[in-house]
Amino acid sequence: MTDFAATKALFHLPEGVIYLDGNSLGPLPRSAPDRMAQVMTREWGDMLITGWNRGGRDSAGWMGQPMAMGDKIGRLIGAEPGHVVLGDTLSVKVYQALASSLMMNPGRKVILSDTGNFPSDLYMAEGLVATRGQDHSLRTVAPEDLADAITDEVAVLMLTEVDYRTGRRHDMAALTALAHQNGAYVIWDLAHSAGALSVDVSGGGADFAVGCTYKYLNGGPGAPAFIYVSPRHADRTPPALSGWLGHASPFAFDLSYRPGAGVERMRVGTPPVLALAALDAALDIWDTVDMQALRAASLRLTDQFIAGVESSCPMLTLATPREHNQRGSQVSFRFAEGYAAMQALIARGVIGDFRAPDIMRFGFTPLFIDQSDVDRAIAILTDVLHNRLWDRPEYRNRAKVT
Amino acid sequence: MTDFAATKALFHLPEGVIYLDGNSLGPLPRSAPDRMAQVMTREWGDMLITGWNRGGRDSAGWMGQPMAMGDKIGRLIGAEPGHVVLGDTLSVKVYQALASSLMMNPGRKVILSDTGNFPSDLYMAEGLVATRGQDHSLRTVAPEDLADAITDEVAVLMLTEVDYRTGRRHDMAALTALAHQNGAYVIWDLAHSAGALSVDVSGGGADFAVGCTYKYLNGGPGAPAFIYVSPRHADRTPPALSGWLGHASPFAFDLSYRPGAGVERMRVGTPPVLALAALDAALDIWDTVDMQALRAASLRLTDQFIAGVESSCPMLTLATPREHNQRGSQVSFRFAEGYAAMQALIARGVIGDFRAPDIMRFGFTPLFIDQSDVDRAIAILTDVLHNRLWDRPEYRNRAKVT
Repeated sequence: MTDFAATKALFHLPEGVIYLDGNSLGPLPRSAPDRMAQVMTREWGDMLITGWNRGGRDSAGWMGQPMAMGDKIGRLIGAEPGHVVLGDTLSVKVYQALASSLMMNPGRKVILSDTGNFPSDLYMAEGLVATRGQDHSLRTVAPEDLADAITDEVAVLMLTEVDYRTGRRHDMAALTALAHQNGAYVIWDLAHSAGALSVDVSGGGADFAVGCTYKYLNGGPGAPAFIYVSPRHADRTPPALSGWLGHASPFAFDLSYRPGAGVERMRVGTPPVLALAALDAALDIWDTVDMQALRAASLRLTDQFIAGVESSCPMLTLATPREHNQRGSQVSFRFAEGYAAMQALIARGVIGDFRAPDIMRFGFTPLFIDQSDVDRAIAILTDVLHNRLWDRPEYRNRAKVT
Repeated sequence: MTDFAATKALFHLPEGVIYLDGNSLGPLPRSAPDRMAQVMTREWGDMLITGWNRGGRDSAGWMGQPMAMGDKIGRLIGAEPGHVVLGDTLSVKVYQALASSLMMNPGRKVILSDTGNFPSDLYMAEGLVATRGQDHSLRTVAPEDLADAITDEVAVLMLTEVDYRTGRRHDMAALTALAHQNGAYVIWDLAHSAGALSVDVSGGGADFAVGCTYKYLNGGPGAPAFIYVSPRHADRTPPALSGWLGHASPFAFDLSYRPGAGVERMRVGTPPVLALAALDAALDIWDTVDMQALRAASLRLTDQFIAGVESSCPMLTLATPREHNQRGSQVSFRFAEGYAAMQALIARGVIGDFRAPDIMRFGFTPLFIDQSDVDRAIAILTDVLHNRLWDRPEYRNRAKVT
């Protein structure tokens, strides 16, 4: 059983702040600065280039970290060992998964997604379509219209499991099965799932999964992304971004590319060693977490928040599905004056965020948010709303969180 | 005038080591750990998400750092202000430049490069060709055959200015002019130029330039890459990796992509804030450096090394051009037993590296290597070679650099 009181003590949280924005940028693990200092001085400083072979955790070498740390994330998302690798940004990983899917499904021309996806994922699809310069297209439908839109024209279905605005969760297994029945590959973006839910990419049949590590995983601002490739495809996936670290033999300096084994071919350039050091400290905490327990705790917190806010703040309208299996680890409410209200709330020390046009968004992260935080957040939100604190000048500008 | 004795004191160099491998991974700036600790605790830790707007140098926000720091690199490579941006890895930046070039030159199908290029750059070109799935091709010729190969079939010429093995330097202005006369775009990879030479991408007419910051620029292992887009193209370049940070309005969350102004459209995902913190410390040192003075110092050191080694180690054959304008800031010698000899040399504290089949490579970095280092390196190399130290068991394994 995971001890969430113990994990809370492992994070630095500013005094007086209730941080309900860990779904945007996770907080600092207290161990991360020392781990970083160690890597900078004892590894980069003292080992210099030999760090590539003998730096990093267990002196196993910086070079191996993207795979070793990938496995730690793999456990959190239900991946088979050896099938997740870290690197680049989520957008780049989306591009890789899309490009590989199109190349593996050459007779089809349509990338299908929905309007609940991150716009950034749609942008990457647009860029890929433009790069190919052929008759490919990106087709985007409403989330509820997906089942009808999965036709035999679709090369690849690209979805984000949890909607970044509403917190609505797709049924990964059902949509993946439907896509497979229609001959399409499926890419799942887990940006709001990894570290938030008990994800099962293997059981859900995902062909590819991608995600970032700076939200629920607490890897730090701009921390590296990850990509999962199903064992069904890992050794046959053509990599579009065929970089030297994905080469079968990077240091042979061959003039021609030969893809490395399995998901290693999804590596592109030199690993971001310093960024990985911070993430490594964050993953130490995750190593202690049971994902079923996390999900149960998340549902308790979100149920508590929904019930409390609905009973005391009738001016807000729940935007997140009420059913457990249809939502992630965030709760969103619609409110016409949501932007101003959120500024006032932040000024009062409850940090959530706002997404246009009217969404007040709150992320619940059991690693460092507990029931007493939720009670306090409800009380402060109630005060902000009933007293319209955003009408007072001192609450109009976003407060400094120091 | 740059004071190179002063800059040397700003780096941590392990006791007893002469580090002639700063062209592979630059050493740790002494100020970098404190700068990193500051960013981790005072910014990530205390500011949390508000760091995006008020973290970073001068509290200008993490979000603006890729452009602000890009300008510091821009000065070192002769770029116009506002035309360099940081992010991703060099391989990703190569892909972006190649894809944009092909899209801007749609009637042509050939990417031209040479066998002196980094294999990794060639791999990325192969991947792009495969992604496009059309009749495009990568054509690779010997460096001396380039002039004849620049024909009206060529969409884009992609070259690395300084050959990573021999240190041979291409004539950027001449090759660029020839390519332009033939209607081709030119991409220059400055991985072994930025911080090594007085580069002039603007005067040289480059269409795109890319580079990494972990070699001569000392940004740390896996530090972010940079890309320059000429002002001639910056506002009309279609970005292939059309990520949300390259969008004209990233936080509007539009469902369609609209490219940002100028080189900002080459941004892809979330900036690597922690990696940028280390690089920021390194760039503080570069801010004090006059690039003409750096080049003069580099030539003095490399001349000294060539003369000393040639006079005392006749078994080595110089692989680097002797003429100043035809070489970068490294010196390479061919030696049949080069691999073993380099291991022994490293065991004696002189760190260079080896590139197959027979290249012993030495990088000269005036920021922290001086004439007395060169004298000592020559003396130790002479001892290693004349006494065949690699025949002794204690010199056979690569020494630990601690």
